[in-house]
Amino acid sequence: MMRNMLIGQSGGPTAAINASLSGAIKRAMAAEEIGKIYGTKAGIEGVLQDKIIPLEQYLQTPEDFDLLENTPAMALGSCRYKLPVLPEGREVYEKVLSIFEKYEIGYFFYIGGNDSMDTVKKLSAYFKEVGKDIKVVGIPKTIDNDLACTDHTPGFGSAAKFVATSILEINRDSQVYDMESITIVEVMGRNAGWLTASSALARLAGTTAPHLIYLPEVPFDVEQFVADFKSFTGKVQNLVIAVSEGIRFADGSYVAESDKVDVFGHRYLSGAGKVLESIVRERSDCKVRSVELNVLQRCAVHLGSATDLTESREVGAAAVQLALEGKTGVVSVIERVSDHPYWVDYSYRDVNEIANLEKKIPREWINDRGNDITEELMTYLKPLILGETPRYVANGLPKHFVFEPIERYGDHN
Amino acid sequence: MMRNMLIGQSGGPTAAINASLSGAIKRAMAAEEIGKIYGTKAGIEGVLQDKIIPLEQYLQTPEDFDLLENTPAMALGSCRYKLPVLPEGREVYEKVLSIFEKYEIGYFFYIGGNDSMDTVKKLSAYFKEVGKDIKVVGIPKTIDNDLACTDHTPGFGSAAKFVATSILEINRDSQVYDMESITIVEVMGRNAGWLTASSALARLAGTTAPHLIYLPEVPFDVEQFVADFKSFTGKVQNLVIAVSEGIRFADGSYVAESDKVDVFGHRYLSGAGKVLESIVRERSDCKVRSVELNVLQRCAVHLGSATDLTESREVGAAAVQLALEGKTGVVSVIERVSDHPYWVDYSYRDVNEIANLEKKIPREWINDRGNDITEELMTYLKPLILGETPRYVANGLPKHFVFEPIERYGDHN
Repeated sequence: MMRNMLIGQSGGPTAAINASLSGAIKRAMAAEEIGKIYGTKAGIEGVLQDKIIPLEQYLQTPEDFDLLENTPAMALGSCRYKLPVLPEGREVYEKVLSIFEKYEIGYFFYIGGNDSMDTVKKLSAYFKEVGKDIKVVGIPKTIDNDLACTDHTPGFGSAAKFVATSILEINRDSQVYDMESITIVEVMGRNAGWLTASSALARLAGTTAPHLIYLPEVPFDVEQFVADFKSFTGKVQNLVIAVSEGIRFADGSYVAESDKVDVFGHRYLSGAGKVLESIVRERSDCKVRSVELNVLQRCAVHLGSATDLTESREVGAAAVQLALEGKTGVVSVIERVSDHPYWVDYSYRDVNEIANLEKKIPREWINDRGNDITEELMTYLKPLILGETPRYVANGLPKHFVFEPIERYGDHN
Repeated sequence: MMRNMLIGQSGGPTAAINASLSGAIKRAMAAEEIGKIYGTKAGIEGVLQDKIIPLEQYLQTPEDFDLLENTPAMALGSCRYKLPVLPEGREVYEKVLSIFEKYEIGYFFYIGGNDSMDTVKKLSAYFKEVGKDIKVVGIPKTIDNDLACTDHTPGFGSAAKFVATSILEINRDSQVYDMESITIVEVMGRNAGWLTASSALARLAGTTAPHLIYLPEVPFDVEQFVADFKSFTGKVQNLVIAVSEGIRFADGSYVAESDKVDVFGHRYLSGAGKVLESIVRERSDCKVRSVELNVLQRCAVHLGSATDLTESREVGAAAVQLALEGKTGVVSVIERVSDHPYWVDYSYRDVNEIANLEKKIPREWINDRGNDITEELMTYLKPLILGETPRYVANGLPKHFVFEPIERYGDHN
């Protein structure tokens, strides 16, 4: 029996999440068992609001797919909606089911991080419970690389490439004046330090930067930090320090307090990078500057990793294959077979092994002093940034894909 | 009589300044009149310290030049040293002259912005005064595009391309959630708004972002800003606002005060973007975020403009040609012949017409309300970001050029 497919995106943007969308759509178009292919605008929230659009009409040529794969952030929009716990929130599930039945959905794919896998878990369990044959498969993505049971997450490699490249370029920038300087680069990652750790990849280009790396996995100590950067005095003139936005003191409190200071128009409490900048300013005479990579690190597809985009597409396609094989409540994952040569297989895990679990950097992949990473972690990271993405350019600017019609008000390009 | 050449770099980093260095060296190597080619580490300061190195040995193959041209920031290092006024500082000039005579320098080229052109002006006047036949020619560079008498400055186009591309990517990033949001992007430019204005180029990719643009050329008014962003309510869901770091109130004071707040470890007074973020937070319920492009915009040669890099190389080569023709106290400049098709000639100006003059955006190229730019300015900006630069990559990261041996302590890659 031919059934239709629905796909959605959720959580925070990555440079590779549309590659997974493209891979899933391509594989579905090639499948006889699948009829129409729908997308939900704004994830599961869009399902509840019946914001369902047919997708195939927008993907007529190979170039359309190429453009989609090289467009950052969710082409279908996103949400941060978490399904309620059963049985209290039963009417929400019934609403979802009614929409699924309206569009005759037999296959649902959800691309996202930890919270999104929670949706896959709850929805697949609900459909089983009420005896509905609707396959629900998760497709992982996050720049944080903090999902369990997959060797790494789609989206991470491109963000890592942006971080490492930026460290290299910032390092060059920091060296032009013949004076001591410290440049602090703040990288995303609230609880897991994978992306901050990937700053170390810059060393593959022959630099010693970053000279210090601070991760959320290790408690941050001000006096140790001061001793750390002072240990370079007279040895390295221009220090570059990578720091995770999520570093915490030993008592568990964030170094970057998130309280908003409401002094009108002038002060706003800053992030971890600014705090470290203040410490350096206080404790040395060194020129100091901090750079927050901010959202650029997750949306800079112009510096995407070809490895990441290819794998993201394959993981999306593999999810469709899993559903066609009758699996539900599973997540499509990447298994590393070998570091040299780098090789991965595509596999799957029960969603219960993944949802709501955070994968942090193992302590043994961080050096004893907690201010750098080990060779094992370098070996793990190295292959993920390999390969350059094609450039789709017009007027000197990247071309991005848009699913028309625009459903929200205003500009959606 | 064969004389040697010396070249130096000065001021702040750009993505294209090494292309000018490469162009000058190439043209000089092809000139019979020029003997050895020396570089000064750290600009004129390096001359005073006799940090002079022969360059040709590091540039053996065409690939060496390619790599140099695609390496950001000054490969020779930089300084911010300003020559003293004569006659008081005569001993400084005599020291410079003694070093020049030691290396038998007949041609001196200085790549830099306004302050560097001041050095060209003073040094060429001094050599004339003391009857020394040493040609001194300036080669312009600055991401700020604020030099007089040249249509635009080498380095500006690449920075503009980074800014416009980032606006596009940040715009996509800002649109994933179905909720109103304002994203403020802070762009470099203390007194001139050219680089902030180039954010408007993002519209060439079909977006309406940036929706508002605030420049140092127009006094900033808080109430007008609030009225500006509120005028989009219900019309555009996700606003992107470009703001120059140098915007000022009507009384001339900077919106971003530069005072350092020395509360240990926690607060540091922020830039214009953070101030605007605070204003939005104070005056609306809209989700708001600010992104400071920071040094990335001036060192991201991975996103360089091929037009900019080509012109930078040509301007460098043209400077050598000018010296060979016997000119001194001049600056190599770009003259725009036509917008459609885009065509430039290379010419020169007396350094007195350039040094210490700031070129700001003409008021008529900014709209009446002072929150956007006009079509004339778009026409001016458009060609400058065209063309993609080649990628020199190893291990998934850009390869950068280094003049060995490293003269300073520590890492210089």
